[in-house]
Amino acid sequence: MVRVGVVGGGQLARMMIPAAINLGFDLRVFAESEVCSARAAHTVVGDYANAEELLAFATDVDVLTFDHEHVSGGVLSTLTDRGVVLYPTAEALALTHDKAFMRSTLSALGYPQPRWTVVDGGPIPQQEIDAVGGFPLIAKKPVGGYDGKGVRQVNVVDDLSDWLEEGPVLLEEKVNFRRELSQLSARNSQGDWIAWDLVQTLQENGVCAEVIAPAPDLPLGLTQLAGDLARNMAYDLGVVGVFAIELFETQEGQLLVNELAMRPHNSGHVFTELSVTSQFEQHLRAVAGFPLGSTRALTSYGVMVNIFGQVDEAGARAAYRADPDVKIHDYMKEARAGRKAGHVVAVGENHQDLVARCKDAAACIRQPDYDGDHE
Amino acid sequence: MVRVGVVGGGQLARMMIPAAINLGFDLRVFAESEVCSARAAHTVVGDYANAEELLAFATDVDVLTFDHEHVSGGVLSTLTDRGVVLYPTAEALALTHDKAFMRSTLSALGYPQPRWTVVDGGPIPQQEIDAVGGFPLIAKKPVGGYDGKGVRQVNVVDDLSDWLEEGPVLLEEKVNFRRELSQLSARNSQGDWIAWDLVQTLQENGVCAEVIAPAPDLPLGLTQLAGDLARNMAYDLGVVGVFAIELFETQEGQLLVNELAMRPHNSGHVFTELSVTSQFEQHLRAVAGFPLGSTRALTSYGVMVNIFGQVDEAGARAAYRADPDVKIHDYMKEARAGRKAGHVVAVGENHQDLVARCKDAAACIRQPDYDGDHE
Repeated sequence: MVRVGVVGGGQLARMMIPAAINLGFDLRVFAESEVCSARAAHTVVGDYANAEELLAFATDVDVLTFDHEHVSGGVLSTLTDRGVVLYPTAEALALTHDKAFMRSTLSALGYPQPRWTVVDGGPIPQQEIDAVGGFPLIAKKPVGGYDGKGVRQVNVVDDLSDWLEEGPVLLEEKVNFRRELSQLSARNSQGDWIAWDLVQTLQENGVCAEVIAPAPDLPLGLTQLAGDLARNMAYDLGVVGVFAIELFETQEGQLLVNELAMRPHNSGHVFTELSVTSQFEQHLRAVAGFPLGSTRALTSYGVMVNIFGQVDEAGARAAYRADPDVKIHDYMKEARAGRKAGHVVAVGENHQDLVARCKDAAACIRQPDYDGDHE
Repeated sequence: MVRVGVVGGGQLARMMIPAAINLGFDLRVFAESEVCSARAAHTVVGDYANAEELLAFATDVDVLTFDHEHVSGGVLSTLTDRGVVLYPTAEALALTHDKAFMRSTLSALGYPQPRWTVVDGGPIPQQEIDAVGGFPLIAKKPVGGYDGKGVRQVNVVDDLSDWLEEGPVLLEEKVNFRRELSQLSARNSQGDWIAWDLVQTLQENGVCAEVIAPAPDLPLGLTQLAGDLARNMAYDLGVVGVFAIELFETQEGQLLVNELAMRPHNSGHVFTELSVTSQFEQHLRAVAGFPLGSTRALTSYGVMVNIFGQVDEAGARAAYRADPDVKIHDYMKEARAGRKAGHVVAVGENHQDLVARCKDAAACIRQPDYDGDHE
């Protein structure tokens, strides 16, 4: 029996449970708290900053994987040195720990990115501003940001003075994109690789709000381009598991890498209903060294809309009654304004219709204010 | 939060877990043993023959439902009298406890059935033999049979002498059927009702071996006939939850009721991959009083083939490698010859192709001998 341990008890761990049950894998979760989203699985409560606690947890599983990217490089190294099998590896996760390191690694490998530079302390030389195309530009804290946190638009030098006092800042070209896309794919520990359809994502306040799969009206060749990029990156970076590449589609039809995630990703939730193999099942198959599953879509389109704040039970009933085709996923998290609390998916033939129906369902149950959380 | 308790820790309870996780329901299982199939859920180990243990379990849930039909009428009455909400109800379950009672109830309501009679002690009067069309006939023990156990073909009177010493025996016409079908549908506690497509089932040694959904080449009107029959029966019998009607399609194009199951059923496993709503999700929605989900199929056909004995991990890997589109469900039961250990599903456009692929996958992992178990 395959035993997989997941560090982190959030919704990604939660959504791995159904996949594990179907596959017949034994899934265990190392969670921050007993009241976590993944509490339906067998959970051990512990501190992911404590290598000894993680080592003890790891003795009962064949492979360790992750619900989030918050385990430090030092702890990951200790686990690896002590013989724990980690997928993704410490090396792959390092790219998600430090956005400046991710940029320099991808630049060295020749991947298309927005122009970028790193500044450390002020004042910022004009040539650094020019290097990313001038104002307005995007500034990111290299470490610790997620879902719009640690990211801001900078219109004048003064907008950045507080951050410059705290450490290095990654400056990026503000890309005049046509839209945002996300390429989900998976590689297993034997080196097999497979991609899902390229999807279109809509961000609101820096947080994923809506996904259409596949991205409608894709220019000729863009699907192939995104697939090649993901395949090459999977091998170049030694990725094992599901990973997401968030992309800008420029007005000129180029693809530029925005962000990477070394795990199942919000932009891939739609595949649970749309595709033969969900991203959660694929991730478990990949990290366990199982053959990968088909990513074939069962119908023309799938749409996902996030629910923030709280999934209200009466609201969910109303949404189900109004539209028996929508699927509501409730992460069973404590209510908090802006928190991703669940999502809605609908699949069918007409993506505009699906977006409208998902939004209608989400409107029954979502809270108005949000500022997002990781994923 | 909706809390559903399931009595029984078999594969049906196991397959309710993913549905509960997606819905955000809290699922608890009252299991015979800690090593049950449903051990991935929160389980309480107890004896379902003990009303007090079930009452204690029921205090933590909003509604009690069942993985099997083995809880006695006496225990069910005690639970009902003490205020526990049971779906299906004790009355509905009584029909599955006693096949003779089921036959007499359905006859009184006018449902089409094979000719039947009940004999008690021998010798059997010739008129009883004639009443069911003569030899060969089918004999069933009214109580305690499942999956071919307690059922035999009788060619001469002497074939039945051992059973007649033990108590009443239900005699049924041996129907010269064209094929066997199964109609799955669900009714919720508010009285909404919905059906899935009528499916074709293939039994081997009295055990479900293969399902094709929808049944290919359905004669005009048969879909409607089966749907009407299920809808009427749901209301007549006060069914709440998913229920299955196993049917004979006669050479003359009639439908005759073979068996009833007041729960998700082996013939409905295919809907997990094929339809917008699985039978497990629908059952939880129905017993919790939630609006029912769409039963729309996402592709033309789905096929399920059972795996008996054991799901071998190396065999599963080989099957996945050979066909990335097949989905293997491993019930994680202790290996035993003939036991339902899992199933394979594939969905697509050509049912002959799907049957071949499911059989190929199952052949990688199934054991040769089997005698079946409940479901």
